[in-house]
Amino acid sequence: MIRLFIPHDLAAGAELALDHAQSHYLASVMRQDVGAQVALFNGRDGEWLSVVTAVTRRAVALRAQSRSRPQTMGPDLDLIVAVVKRGRVETIVEKAAELGARRVRLALTERTNADRARVERLTAIATEAAEQTGRLDVPAVLEPVKLSKLIDGWDAGRRLLFCDEAGDASPILEALSPQAGGEPWAILIGPEGGFSPAERERLRGLPYAVPASLGPRILRADTAAISALTLWQAALGDWASPTRLGGAP
Amino acid sequence: MIRLFIPHDLAAGAELALDHAQSHYLASVMRQDVGAQVALFNGRDGEWLSVVTAVTRRAVALRAQSRSRPQTMGPDLDLIVAVVKRGRVETIVEKAAELGARRVRLALTERTNADRARVERLTAIATEAAEQTGRLDVPAVLEPVKLSKLIDGWDAGRRLLFCDEAGDASPILEALSPQAGGEPWAILIGPEGGFSPAERERLRGLPYAVPASLGPRILRADTAAISALTLWQAALGDWASPTRLGGAP
Repeated sequence: MIRLFIPHDLAAGAELALDHAQSHYLASVMRQDVGAQVALFNGRDGEWLSVVTAVTRRAVALRAQSRSRPQTMGPDLDLIVAVVKRGRVETIVEKAAELGARRVRLALTERTNADRARVERLTAIATEAAEQTGRLDVPAVLEPVKLSKLIDGWDAGRRLLFCDEAGDASPILEALSPQAGGEPWAILIGPEGGFSPAERERLRGLPYAVPASLGPRILRADTAAISALTLWQAALGDWASPTRLGGAP
Repeated sequence: MIRLFIPHDLAAGAELALDHAQSHYLASVMRQDVGAQVALFNGRDGEWLSVVTAVTRRAVALRAQSRSRPQTMGPDLDLIVAVVKRGRVETIVEKAAELGARRVRLALTERTNADRARVERLTAIATEAAEQTGRLDVPAVLEPVKLSKLIDGWDAGRRLLFCDEAGDASPILEALSPQAGGEPWAILIGPEGGFSPAERERLRGLPYAVPASLGPRILRADTAAISALTLWQAALGDWASPTRLGGAP
């Protein structure tokens, strides 16, 4: 079944108009017509089986019928990633959505070459990936911020898995295994050139930081992000107990 | 330092001519000239510091000087992946090289749409990724074969991690943890449409197969491949003991 994320409130009988892009997708790309069933979610009200009630050239209308899944959220997990080449950032955002991150924070580090990212486009990628992966929320993609500023304003209750390619950190499963017991967490992935010595020193000194190594080979930033998200979910997150999200078929 | 994979034997003093594509890359793209140092490897003789001895418009020559790392191999790990869309297969091959698979076997399943893959291009992608990731061999990429044929000819000593998205399999770390103790292994990733019921039944019945679940969300084939490779390496492979590959700086 086609799943769409919409901003509107969802309740039994709610009449909903899709925006132009979603209307085009549903009617012209997916060739759905009046009577077709679609699953809608908004990140608040669960997933609703809905029926297409009108199709015009520019707009599709639907009526929400019954709630197929109650609202659930994945773990409170941020992915913080240095701004890298556009294609790789797009891959990272898509995979962060599939792998259940709640937010993607873009960071500017000393060795980050770029200083901008197309947050609107990245949000569209996150939304499409959330629709396809079956989750009931869309990860937020936040505007780039300097890493030093992110750390200055850190909530010390959020632990930080810091993937330290250059160091002598423990293997990641060893580093994570004594860390059981709740969220929130963040995962930090540096740029392709690595962190600067000053950045590494500061990160290593943070009381809430857990350094970890991602194996003996050099990983691209997108690979490192996917691998770290996977291992966090498998060791501490919702992969350990597959029913945690609830309501999934 | 630039690393290049070459087919030639490597030994102290060996004189080596790069092919046209590598010569162009080294001289024109990377702008290296006589006297530049390059690391060469061939999958057999370790990694050799080498010096550029001649640069012409069409060819670069080098002399191997000293062995910087002895030959080592990662674990005997196959990635078997259903042929999916071209871009996603290319991502999978790149990541399989970074994540230390020894071979990528392309499989045709009942729900595979494509029946061909550009193995030569995929081998070039595997080679470039091996050069960048620091490994001393290039994963082999094999021509597509029917999944049923692969299983007919299976070596029962090779265990098979079978990522069963549709089933009630154990979480992957739980499934892998009692499986310690050596190789060879293979990881099997199905197509986006999943395995057919007949395929799943056969896979589930194989005595060497270990079914596992990859969490509560639906993963694209490339994400599933990267996640499974990561978890295998972290639980049973060379991520658990980072010095295993040896010689890495």
